[in-house]
Amino acid sequence: MDAKTARFAYEDFEVGSVMTFGPRLITRGEIIEYATEFDPQPMHLDDEAANKSMLKGLSASGWHSCAIMMRMIYDGFLHESSSLGAPGVDEMRWMRPVRPDDQLTIRVTCLGKRDSGSRPQVGLVRFNLEMLNGKNEIVLQSSYSGFFGKRNSAATP
Amino acid sequence: MDAKTARFAYEDFEVGSVMTFGPRLITRGEIIEYATEFDPQPMHLDDEAANKSMLKGLSASGWHSCAIMMRMIYDGFLHESSSLGAPGVDEMRWMRPVRPDDQLTIRVTCLGKRDSGSRPQVGLVRFNLEMLNGKNEIVLQSSYSGFFGKRNSAATP
Repeated sequence: MDAKTARFAYEDFEVGSVMTFGPRLITRGEIIEYATEFDPQPMHLDDEAANKSMLKGLSASGWHSCAIMMRMIYDGFLHESSSLGAPGVDEMRWMRPVRPDDQLTIRVTCLGKRDSGSRPQVGLVRFNLEMLNGKNEIVLQSSYSGFFGKRNSAATP
Repeated sequence: MDAKTARFAYEDFEVGSVMTFGPRLITRGEIIEYATEFDPQPMHLDDEAANKSMLKGLSASGWHSCAIMMRMIYDGFLHESSSLGAPGVDEMRWMRPVRPDDQLTIRVTCLGKRDSGSRPQVGLVRFNLEMLNGKNEIVLQSSYSGFFGKRNSAATP
């Protein structure tokens, strides 16, 4: 979205600010469907195998949790932002299993921001991302930096 | 899989060894289907918007590339291993866009291994992961450590 009209342009992110999104239910059917396509390890597909695993019960693929986090962030604020993409993710910790029928929420904390070295109309915003379950336990923690267009830039993005 | 019978137990990973898997075609239809569900940013859905984006053409969601990498690693060796899961990923770099009809390969390099501090029957193996396109360009780079059961452990896993 053009930075001039976006609700969230580079200038709008305040260091230390926190946004929360959700809850979003994850179902057994979704967990099995995702795992069947992308991560068919028995602990994500089969109750008996899952009960014997380190995670002691059926759990979502960690990549499925990431995908749901992406969608929740998109719906939460990215779709109204001047986001231009992200070069990667700096860490990703699957801290607890995500279970069928968990109610997932996302907490996004703005850690910092800086101008792009090469493009004056663009800035980088750094976020800490946490996914929590219905018991308010952190199930996933990550941090990343994203490119955002500046509203008040003389140059055209 | 039980470490006694697995093709790849902890003992079988040699530091410096390289495994390659693929190629695996990614289609326009898959890219749009994944993005519609998990990452509906215009650059992953719509040619016109994508052409105007930083990536200059339709590209897969970075999380879709991760999901395909997971599946290729599973099919390549994890399903025949004593893998017990992974606590996370240490970095993830989306280095180049993944395009419709790219032929993707995965290169897995064993970086190191060590005993688990708390569980004598388990070890941690550290890998560098690279996804390459048909031009042999790295499109995704990541590293992670995974838990693997030991074949020659006195204790029962």
